[in-house]
Amino acid sequence: MNTDSQDLWKGKSKWELDTPCLVVAEDLLEQNIKTMQAHALSFGKQLRPHAKTHKCSRIAKMQMKAGCAGICVAKISEAEVLGDKGLRSLLLTSPVVTDYKIEKLMNCLSRDPELMVVVDNYDNAKKLNAAAQRREFRLNVLVDLDPGMGRTGVPFAEGLAMGKLIASLPYLRLQGIQCYAGHVQHLASFEERTRVSLNWMKQAAGVWRQFRQEGLPGAIFTGAGTGTYEIDCRIPELTDLQVGSYTMMDADYLSIGSSQDSSRFAEFPPALTLLTTVISTNRPNFITVDAGLKALYHHGGVPYVLHPPGQGFKYEWFGDEHGRIAIAESSPKPAIGQVLELVVSHCDPTVNLFDVLYLTRNQIVVDVWPIDLRGKCQ
Amino acid sequence: MNTDSQDLWKGKSKWELDTPCLVVAEDLLEQNIKTMQAHALSFGKQLRPHAKTHKCSRIAKMQMKAGCAGICVAKISEAEVLGDKGLRSLLLTSPVVTDYKIEKLMNCLSRDPELMVVVDNYDNAKKLNAAAQRREFRLNVLVDLDPGMGRTGVPFAEGLAMGKLIASLPYLRLQGIQCYAGHVQHLASFEERTRVSLNWMKQAAGVWRQFRQEGLPGAIFTGAGTGTYEIDCRIPELTDLQVGSYTMMDADYLSIGSSQDSSRFAEFPPALTLLTTVISTNRPNFITVDAGLKALYHHGGVPYVLHPPGQGFKYEWFGDEHGRIAIAESSPKPAIGQVLELVVSHCDPTVNLFDVLYLTRNQIVVDVWPIDLRGKCQ
Repeated sequence: MNTDSQDLWKGKSKWELDTPCLVVAEDLLEQNIKTMQAHALSFGKQLRPHAKTHKCSRIAKMQMKAGCAGICVAKISEAEVLGDKGLRSLLLTSPVVTDYKIEKLMNCLSRDPELMVVVDNYDNAKKLNAAAQRREFRLNVLVDLDPGMGRTGVPFAEGLAMGKLIASLPYLRLQGIQCYAGHVQHLASFEERTRVSLNWMKQAAGVWRQFRQEGLPGAIFTGAGTGTYEIDCRIPELTDLQVGSYTMMDADYLSIGSSQDSSRFAEFPPALTLLTTVISTNRPNFITVDAGLKALYHHGGVPYVLHPPGQGFKYEWFGDEHGRIAIAESSPKPAIGQVLELVVSHCDPTVNLFDVLYLTRNQIVVDVWPIDLRGKCQ
Repeated sequence: MNTDSQDLWKGKSKWELDTPCLVVAEDLLEQNIKTMQAHALSFGKQLRPHAKTHKCSRIAKMQMKAGCAGICVAKISEAEVLGDKGLRSLLLTSPVVTDYKIEKLMNCLSRDPELMVVVDNYDNAKKLNAAAQRREFRLNVLVDLDPGMGRTGVPFAEGLAMGKLIASLPYLRLQGIQCYAGHVQHLASFEERTRVSLNWMKQAAGVWRQFRQEGLPGAIFTGAGTGTYEIDCRIPELTDLQVGSYTMMDADYLSIGSSQDSSRFAEFPPALTLLTTVISTNRPNFITVDAGLKALYHHGGVPYVLHPPGQGFKYEWFGDEHGRIAIAESSPKPAIGQVLELVVSHCDPTVNLFDVLYLTRNQIVVDVWPIDLRGKCQ
């Protein structure tokens, strides 16, 4: 009874969908993937986009088809699902430290010899080396560098030493460095973001050059996000970009400055939106909709109303199950049952709340894609 | 490869579990269910606990076995799953307004004649009446009253009129009123919470008495939450309590005052905890763990560290995939691979991020329960 065949929605107008639900405009998704690919190419860089944003193997496949070098994942459980769906050349962008997870990593490696993982601790490197030895594998490894945030990574000054230690372990194959400055991506001012990001990335580039000077193997320098996709391409040593949000976009990213506009980030239109239905209208100045913080992750600013346009409707948080839409006195109040379309506040954790994406063209549902990495936080 | 049989964890120490994951201490869950049931009984009230918190049909069955009058759900998609699992006497605590969802409601009603839904709009009532007529059903309905919040419900002054309108519709069966003051539950001061809650609930009780005076059918007056479970029992007209969080508990609830202690809410110990593993330790004053805001919903305060106890460790938000644990200078720094246990910030949306609950006794995993209402926000 609760196992709707999602296929029943194909061919219908997206405005008929049961809400709350996530919709992806396929043409905008394709456009965003193409724009970013062309950008990277124009700078001689590659893309290694992050699946933590879309959590969808179908979108990862689109990215690979467009010419990406590989796909990033944050957790081993994400790598397992992508591997099951045929994706290869995966990069695990966080350290994998427990015996249980290292065993899973080895299982993934057995079908994806190009798989890579970052390391920021020598004992962890030795554990990975021993695990690879037991299976007679060689595991590709990047030295994770800390861009001043301290989340993971070794300090720049210790990057070379860590590289040498890893290069000395026979079952690991040093492939280069990762430096991802997550805390820089959303800085509102493009100038400030440029200054801060280049500061960290230049230091990472220095470590990369030390690797070359010392004859260490591995020429990969992976990093950057959607917020610094233009900025970090100025670093000649950078080889690939771990961009993620550009596929879907959200209110958070759209509100920061870019090279073209100091007040908004307009290069990538929001392909992802959320549909929500009006369920109660007993107040004069606001209405209640069916999307609360279990449908729109409460992080990264406030979702905004895309449709109906031009009414000045404002989404406001209203608990776990509901949202409030503030209505200006001059605007007509939407009726019970009317569907509104929102741009979500923070795409990554919001996508992680749903099981499927409804793909649309010209407002018509053309496909339903499982969010098959949803909930894979292990 | 990614479809672990969760049963492999049974009999193992919870400290071996793959993290991040949610753990429920079965004895504390049973204790909380028993405590609340005894409390309600002592006041001559019934419980109609809310499944939106635990999202788990197994826990709903425990609650029914303990003597509850029924189970509340926020969305029709939750009612469908609970119905599939054999639960009956469900109450939908939000209006059901679209044709698609009303059809689902009728399907649920076909196997659960006691099912109830709230109404706060006459046109919606007429739609429900017409749908019930088409199936030759009678649908139980409560008038939803607005406790000053405006989320759903009619103003108290319009409650009687709405009751009369509903009573006039032949395929609806008026059963009484709902008044749930969600915005009152977390007021930190017990005195303030008492004053505010009694103000709203007394007005709702006035509507309930009007129903009696006018000879309207239906004697149910459902409302209250975990934060007002003691307070609202002072209202003689209240028949049942829609408590939810008492089963699991969270940092948010545990930090508010109660009748016994002005600075904490200690009657219900936290049955729900989250396990997270240290993955990086390169900084002197903090470490990085594998639970970020995709594993701990970023709402309702900050999670706190339950284990190891007494070290003064503090969880701090550190992005989508990671958490930061601040370490006092005097405390030993946990090692990579060490598992920490946290009380989550807000249980409802955090439970909604996971697929299973690991049930434990004396730190041993005794069962693995699906969070089968997870993601059911439609």
